[in-house]
Amino acid sequence: MSNPTSIDALARQSFEDYVAGAVYEFGAIAVDEDDVIGFGNQFDPQPFHTDPAAASQWHFGGLIASGWHTGALAMRLLVDHFLPVTASLGSPGVDELRWPRPVRPGDVLSLRVTILEARRSTSKPDRGFMRTHIEVLNQHREVVMSLKAMNLLRCAS
Amino acid sequence: MSNPTSIDALARQSFEDYVAGAVYEFGAIAVDEDDVIGFGNQFDPQPFHTDPAAASQWHFGGLIASGWHTGALAMRLLVDHFLPVTASLGSPGVDELRWPRPVRPGDVLSLRVTILEARRSTSKPDRGFMRTHIEVLNQHREVVMSLKAMNLLRCAS
Repeated sequence: MSNPTSIDALARQSFEDYVAGAVYEFGAIAVDEDDVIGFGNQFDPQPFHTDPAAASQWHFGGLIASGWHTGALAMRLLVDHFLPVTASLGSPGVDELRWPRPVRPGDVLSLRVTILEARRSTSKPDRGFMRTHIEVLNQHREVVMSLKAMNLLRCAS
Repeated sequence: MSNPTSIDALARQSFEDYVAGAVYEFGAIAVDEDDVIGFGNQFDPQPFHTDPAAASQWHFGGLIASGWHTGALAMRLLVDHFLPVTASLGSPGVDELRWPRPVRPGDVLSLRVTILEARRSTSKPDRGFMRTHIEVLNQHREVVMSLKAMNLLRCAS
């Protein structure tokens, strides 16, 4: 099994391009303090996401990104580097979403994606079902978020 | 077991205010087309989240919100109406996150939260662990997102 470290947009056109066992790594995306605070104020206004002074007194010891912000940043990396541009049919859901370490301003995130399963639908043979294990890594290669995702992809033939 | 339909901020100060079996309903938050497109462009630039014309040709039949956007909107409702303002210690993770129906511009979302489990930590007795079943409902009271969340909360005594 080859384990490429990136997947070119031209090589991700349809379900058939995704094979169980393959591992991809790609990124990176920087986490900016203004973005952490902005996302926090809009969607998750808890002091450890929005107020650096208050956050420094909290048990995290400083500002951390909302878990939903980290998820959204990971989604951006998936769309830019992994999912098929014209064959993505959305996701029924996600399992085992975890935030084992905080994401802090200044961190740089990248993704490691392992394809766990890829099978053609029997009821709708124009599409396939994929399960992936997605790990979000910081610049120290520590896992800051992980999840198991499901995706539906259009087949080429 | 009482099943209040809202939980006042003054009544949610610490872990002890959360009891297994209680059900809360609250909201609402409106989903705006500009916000759907803005979130999509920033975090999930797939055509069914960002391009109304392309989305109308897609199998969803129109623009839909990114699942991470729906999650972020649900988080806002949790912070505003359910989690304890000064006793929230973050979340280790989420299980069984599902998006059974699309969220469309113009939808109005509310939350139904059932407390599945609330137990004091034995290793760290100043905090408690809570598991909830969270359902995001649209204005037709259809479930558009559901998840099982874990939260750590500070105890009052």
